[in-house]
Amino acid sequence: MDIAFVLYPNMTALDLVGPYDVLSPGPDVTAHLVAATPDPVLAGSAMRLVPTTTFDELDHADVIVVPGGEPYDVLADGAVAAWLRKVHPTATWTTSVCTGSTLLASAGVLEGKRATTHWALRDLLASLGAEVSTDRVVRDGSVLTAAGVSAGIDMALTLAGILWGDTVAQGIQLAIEYDPEPPYDSGSVEKAAPEVVDFVRGVIASGFSADKDEAATA
Amino acid sequence: MDIAFVLYPNMTALDLVGPYDVLSPGPDVTAHLVAATPDPVLAGSAMRLVPTTTFDELDHADVIVVPGGEPYDVLADGAVAAWLRKVHPTATWTTSVCTGSTLLASAGVLEGKRATTHWALRDLLASLGAEVSTDRVVRDGSVLTAAGVSAGIDMALTLAGILWGDTVAQGIQLAIEYDPEPPYDSGSVEKAAPEVVDFVRGVIASGFSADKDEAATA
Repeated sequence: MDIAFVLYPNMTALDLVGPYDVLSPGPDVTAHLVAATPDPVLAGSAMRLVPTTTFDELDHADVIVVPGGEPYDVLADGAVAAWLRKVHPTATWTTSVCTGSTLLASAGVLEGKRATTHWALRDLLASLGAEVSTDRVVRDGSVLTAAGVSAGIDMALTLAGILWGDTVAQGIQLAIEYDPEPPYDSGSVEKAAPEVVDFVRGVIASGFSADKDEAATA
Repeated sequence: MDIAFVLYPNMTALDLVGPYDVLSPGPDVTAHLVAATPDPVLAGSAMRLVPTTTFDELDHADVIVVPGGEPYDVLADGAVAAWLRKVHPTATWTTSVCTGSTLLASAGVLEGKRATTHWALRDLLASLGAEVSTDRVVRDGSVLTAAGVSAGIDMALTLAGILWGDTVAQGIQLAIEYDPEPPYDSGSVEKAAPEVVDFVRGVIASGFSADKDEAATA
């Protein structure tokens, strides 16, 4: 089973690595890290991941995992969406984490489908034609989408159960000791205090403004 | 604030990337990925991470994060422990995820300290002199240790609260939408079904046997 994990600049590492450590140890899995070029890809401020293959080289995958990141850059670039148009028809399962769903939508994968995304980007996903859900993991046919960042772990365990059955999926959960005990209860926009929500919205908005300023002056 | 994320061959990517995506976006953080050499480091079957610096070059860090992986290899190698002996005295916080605690112990950091690790490796950690706890996150003085793999997210959010206060830590939790909904409840050895525990113990034991065979023939 070939599983393709998509890399692109300014992606969020945890979006990718949650599903990577859940799915890549599965039975008979060959994991591919696929990007536009063979050069290492930056995720966050310091982490660079080395692709194993490129969009040109990889024509098929049984499972595709698209992480989130700074979507405006990648939506504008189009290389990820072009690859998804080529490979999604060959895949048994196409999945996304966080704003990765906006990339699926821009490739036409979410036409008429229910999907989820990071809580702060629901309007963007809706504007791209998906039927937006606020659920943490959404399955519509052969497409699985996850909410923000850490939700990729829940999505990948759900997919592991579909692919390999409950015992294997539960074994993977135990192997990664996924019995969460967050020290706070502010992981969703419904649960966080208003000042916390405002703080995060401000940070996200300033990041997007900076992106747009950079794009305008590039 | 300089945060050093330690890389070594056959580490577990999620052990590192959970804390990386919680801590590296924090205020005034410079993240370093430090390894024995500048060459990319393999994590799992396909992922290679590019160091930003080396053990020789990096003499100080305010926070150290040591991921888990296949501990026998690294305990035998000693390069990580040697670096920890040099830099731990300069750090305000030294932390580990999963079997990363065995590396702290082998460097003498856990002398007389309470610490946790992956549920399947508690005996190994005890044999290295730590007072082993079954808690998910353990703080003893300036040392924070986490249980297996995904527990690094909980540990890092705990540390974020200590470093930057509750509002920032809660904001980070909301930004990564960490409101877990595992599809199964088998994330701890106390909760998983006996056949699931046996399955995982078998996989782990066979991995260690293979390591030892490789070491014997190397």
